[in-house]
Amino acid sequence: MNTKRNIYLNMVSIEEAKTCLFDRFKNLVTEAETLDVVDARGRVLASQAVAAISSPNFHAAAMDGIAVDAEQTFGACEDAPMTLEIGKTAFWVNTGHSLPQGTNAVIMIENLNVLDDRSVEIEAPVFPWQYVRKMGEDIVATQLLFPRDHLINAYAMGALLSGGVFRVAVRKQPRVMIIPTGSELKQWRDVRPETMNSGDVVESNATVLGALCQDHGAGFEIHSMLRDDRDTIQNAVSHAVCDGYDMVMIIGGSSAGSEDYAKPVISALGEVYVHGVTMMPGKPVMFGQIETTPVFGIPGYPVSAIVAFEQFAGPLLLKMQHLPEITRPVMPVTPARKVASKLGQEEFLRVKIGSVDGKLMSSQLPRGSGSITTLTEADGIIRIPRHVEGVLDSETVDAYLLRPLSAIEDTVVITGSHDNTLDLLADQIRQNNPGTGISSSHVGSMGGLMALKKGACHMAGAHLLDPEDGSYNISYIEKYLADVPVRVVNLVMREQGLILPKGNPDEISGLADIADKGLDFINRQTGSGTRILLDYRLKELGIAPGDIPGYENDEYTHMSVAVAVLSGRARAGLGIKAAAIALGLDFLPVVTESYDLVIPEVYFHSQKIQTLLATISSDEFKKRVLALGGYGVEKTGELLYQSA
Amino acid sequence: MNTKRNIYLNMVSIEEAKTCLFDRFKNLVTEAETLDVVDARGRVLASQAVAAISSPNFHAAAMDGIAVDAEQTFGACEDAPMTLEIGKTAFWVNTGHSLPQGTNAVIMIENLNVLDDRSVEIEAPVFPWQYVRKMGEDIVATQLLFPRDHLINAYAMGALLSGGVFRVAVRKQPRVMIIPTGSELKQWRDVRPETMNSGDVVESNATVLGALCQDHGAGFEIHSMLRDDRDTIQNAVSHAVCDGYDMVMIIGGSSAGSEDYAKPVISALGEVYVHGVTMMPGKPVMFGQIETTPVFGIPGYPVSAIVAFEQFAGPLLLKMQHLPEITRPVMPVTPARKVASKLGQEEFLRVKIGSVDGKLMSSQLPRGSGSITTLTEADGIIRIPRHVEGVLDSETVDAYLLRPLSAIEDTVVITGSHDNTLDLLADQIRQNNPGTGISSSHVGSMGGLMALKKGACHMAGAHLLDPEDGSYNISYIEKYLADVPVRVVNLVMREQGLILPKGNPDEISGLADIADKGLDFINRQTGSGTRILLDYRLKELGIAPGDIPGYENDEYTHMSVAVAVLSGRARAGLGIKAAAIALGLDFLPVVTESYDLVIPEVYFHSQKIQTLLATISSDEFKKRVLALGGYGVEKTGELLYQSA
Repeated sequence: MNTKRNIYLNMVSIEEAKTCLFDRFKNLVTEAETLDVVDARGRVLASQAVAAISSPNFHAAAMDGIAVDAEQTFGACEDAPMTLEIGKTAFWVNTGHSLPQGTNAVIMIENLNVLDDRSVEIEAPVFPWQYVRKMGEDIVATQLLFPRDHLINAYAMGALLSGGVFRVAVRKQPRVMIIPTGSELKQWRDVRPETMNSGDVVESNATVLGALCQDHGAGFEIHSMLRDDRDTIQNAVSHAVCDGYDMVMIIGGSSAGSEDYAKPVISALGEVYVHGVTMMPGKPVMFGQIETTPVFGIPGYPVSAIVAFEQFAGPLLLKMQHLPEITRPVMPVTPARKVASKLGQEEFLRVKIGSVDGKLMSSQLPRGSGSITTLTEADGIIRIPRHVEGVLDSETVDAYLLRPLSAIEDTVVITGSHDNTLDLLADQIRQNNPGTGISSSHVGSMGGLMALKKGACHMAGAHLLDPEDGSYNISYIEKYLADVPVRVVNLVMREQGLILPKGNPDEISGLADIADKGLDFINRQTGSGTRILLDYRLKELGIAPGDIPGYENDEYTHMSVAVAVLSGRARAGLGIKAAAIALGLDFLPVVTESYDLVIPEVYFHSQKIQTLLATISSDEFKKRVLALGGYGVEKTGELLYQSA
Repeated sequence: MNTKRNIYLNMVSIEEAKTCLFDRFKNLVTEAETLDVVDARGRVLASQAVAAISSPNFHAAAMDGIAVDAEQTFGACEDAPMTLEIGKTAFWVNTGHSLPQGTNAVIMIENLNVLDDRSVEIEAPVFPWQYVRKMGEDIVATQLLFPRDHLINAYAMGALLSGGVFRVAVRKQPRVMIIPTGSELKQWRDVRPETMNSGDVVESNATVLGALCQDHGAGFEIHSMLRDDRDTIQNAVSHAVCDGYDMVMIIGGSSAGSEDYAKPVISALGEVYVHGVTMMPGKPVMFGQIETTPVFGIPGYPVSAIVAFEQFAGPLLLKMQHLPEITRPVMPVTPARKVASKLGQEEFLRVKIGSVDGKLMSSQLPRGSGSITTLTEADGIIRIPRHVEGVLDSETVDAYLLRPLSAIEDTVVITGSHDNTLDLLADQIRQNNPGTGISSSHVGSMGGLMALKKGACHMAGAHLLDPEDGSYNISYIEKYLADVPVRVVNLVMREQGLILPKGNPDEISGLADIADKGLDFINRQTGSGTRILLDYRLKELGIAPGDIPGYENDEYTHMSVAVAVLSGRARAGLGIKAAAIALGLDFLPVVTESYDLVIPEVYFHSQKIQTLLATISSDEFKKRVLALGGYGVEKTGELLYQSA
């Protein structure tokens, strides 16, 4: 068993792992079962389906009218109309009716003169088989309707029933046992969000994997959550195999840590084929075999779990049913910034995609495998191969789309400064425009202007203070966007200030106190309007950045600053009042500033931008903004500037 | 109410009908209901989902190791290792665990020297927050997870649970009442194919429409089958509306015939908005409103019913749930022959599509709206607009794909003569190659050679007799395919002869009897090998085609000839023995001929052609061929000819 060790002691590439998986389980296919056709939607035929009857099963009238023997009508013309006797030489039929014995054509009711109850007159002959659906025209008894492995959809159900096939042999749906492990996990049914203990984690992977099983034609059961205990886990896996599940997934414990039991459990009961694949996320995936059953060790980080499923477990489930592979549409996109990637591992880079000026622009989402929102916010995935060090912003790369292209095209891409009202806008715009979406990336006000310049977004959110005159944005636009004609529309006025722990325990009365008292501060990233505001204020007060402890720690959103204060990671941060209110923190006002949308002239009149502007100006939007607290809407929707 | 009359008395275009439909029902949306997230897959959020907790909800270790206060490690180096005390300055943690109070960084287990039970040694300092997943890194409590109208997929379920959202308000699934009408219809449960009466039709539309409802996110119920009786139908519709169904579909009776009750019923209970749309198939579609409920009159021909659903009822069901439109991938295809189309109506032309030499070639399927197999055999649909008279074989047109492009690419396109063993081959090839398909079009032997010449298929099936020397195919290939190097492989030897009613009631002993006795004959189309054989034999016997009654009536397949004899439409036809056997008819042998596959050299070595040839040569295929009767396999798979 020398090869066995070699296989799982080394990391392998995705291709090698797939080859191994499909080779080891090449004969694994679910049994056939016989179902009524009406219950077989989405299933795959286990054997060919052959018509039992013809369709039509008789010569059928294709029009309403009379059925006749065509030969008897020869000679009828306008000058010499012919009279036919109902019940003898002519028979009333409706569309779909069987032709009476001895007839072979139908004359439309519109072409008849009804003389009386018993006779009609025709003024033209008919050809044999006119307006007749001949027996077997659609389906001939004994013909092949579908070969084995045909996927039964709505249309196929119609053909089967029409061909007299009422029951079919189809592949059984595989049953998957999903076993979540991890002592810190709680079942959602057992917790209340408001009273969760620190350290408790709501188990979500099992639900996600279960839904993915369904997407792959399989049924699933979720085992009760198991603590990190080898015997318990081994026992559960052993039972699942004995109970005839077609696949077992152990979630968590697939790494090489002291409490990672997936590998010892599979090894003890069967054989591990692959442990570790050179991909990111999803590296610690593992699979093997116990008796005839494939068993997977699925990493516990949510994005890793999904990638591991979609690369290996999912395709195997499809293959077991002879279902076709699930393919995602691929489109070429242009990255807004260059992306570095580690050589030797294939990376699944999650990106937002915006259709800007007819070109698909992608912007990278965070890469952490622990962040499920990087997948839910993603419009696509760029796969960076193992032998490539990254992608440049000048090159076009393929992205697998996670949303329909039409939805991407109906989305307004806002890049720049973060504000909580953008989320609110994303929801409010749907009120009257179900198809329209907003996608916002938080790269700071300056980042937004740069993205506009590059043509990577439809508008930028900015609140750039000009210390010279106290104005916002205009001087920056004139400096950095001289060649891009734009309009500037106010979104909101908002209060910026110090976000402090509830009750202000450090008794802070201003920025100076932070330096004086040596309190940990949480900063915003370089290029953000809030950072520029901080630096301006510190200069005014004569405080050196080095005198603020934590000046070098930065976050990308107001909410992240607030949560840093909430969690005790910092004692103060600069941010908007709405963020402090949202998390129940204290707030010390510093300035009221203008948060504006900078919109290039070329997009301004487009349907989706106008829809967005109409939403901003609606009373309902303004009302919801005011309800957040810390905002003013007196200028909301107002055109503040237009390039000359 | 003048406009009302104008609307439904005139036929309208698809666009006009859609505008009317979506305008009349613009405010129709299903109610919200609250579901557990784990049950909400495939549903649409009725209101925004906002995170109740952060994820992580605490600072979490991202590695196995010890948690420390980073500041206390400053100064540690290789020359001056630092000792930390377990339980005081260092705490064991595993990935995912909450950081103990007072710590803000994790040191990986690999970077520790464990001195004893109570102390560890480090040789390097750590930065604050190293290997820590900070609270809120993925989700910050109060943040927007998804705006309203977001479609809940597996990923979204993960984000909702992680954000502490366990129940969500989603749009209810609409419930559709499907009412099949037509006195000739039988429920499949009530019939046995072998004992069906002439005139009985198995109802299949309701099942198809029900499955399509499910594809569009809706539930459905099928009403018991109704006879063509106005009161009964009106009563059923009225009840469905009262019972709160979100949509009602009356199948059948949507035309203007004497027993077409959909319109009078809807008019009596409410209002008809559209009756008749300038499209083919599906023209007699109708819709209106009863109380607040949309009610459809769906034509009874199966393809018409499907087109009517997919153009109107389906999109409305999606809109009622704010589900995104279903879009099919579109690819440019080249028609193998030109197609004429009627001005003034939009046609949905069903086509087979083959990927030949890197180009997608389409060939038209029959246009009859009564033939469900024209949809199940179709790979795509070409929409020919109202103002266009057809498409030329030189132009490229868009086709909506009904099968994945990859499946189309894995399909061998065989054009030419019809033989029953091609169906058998289509099934047998799947035995070891689940992804591979065969698509065969029956255009006759000469048609097959012409298709090869045009590059419209991968191989042609042919059995062209050369009367000069009794050889098959070779002389035709040398004449018509001089510039296309090919190989010829025998598929089967087969018996051709006269297909006669069971028991040979006319006592036919040869072709001459048909002319002599003046019996109705059913012919094959011009260009088919069988037609050429017939003409050759008639000439030999000195019989003029005009002496054979029915010589001008032709069919495209052996099975259609056999069914014409079975149904009494003809008293004799020329065809293969297998067709006669399949339908239990008599057979009088005329000749044993070679049915060959003509394969261009350029495709011969491709993977899919080699797979097909390997299947032909397998014992299992030959065994199944012999079981059909009328075939010989002594040359099957043999290379008979190769162009110089």
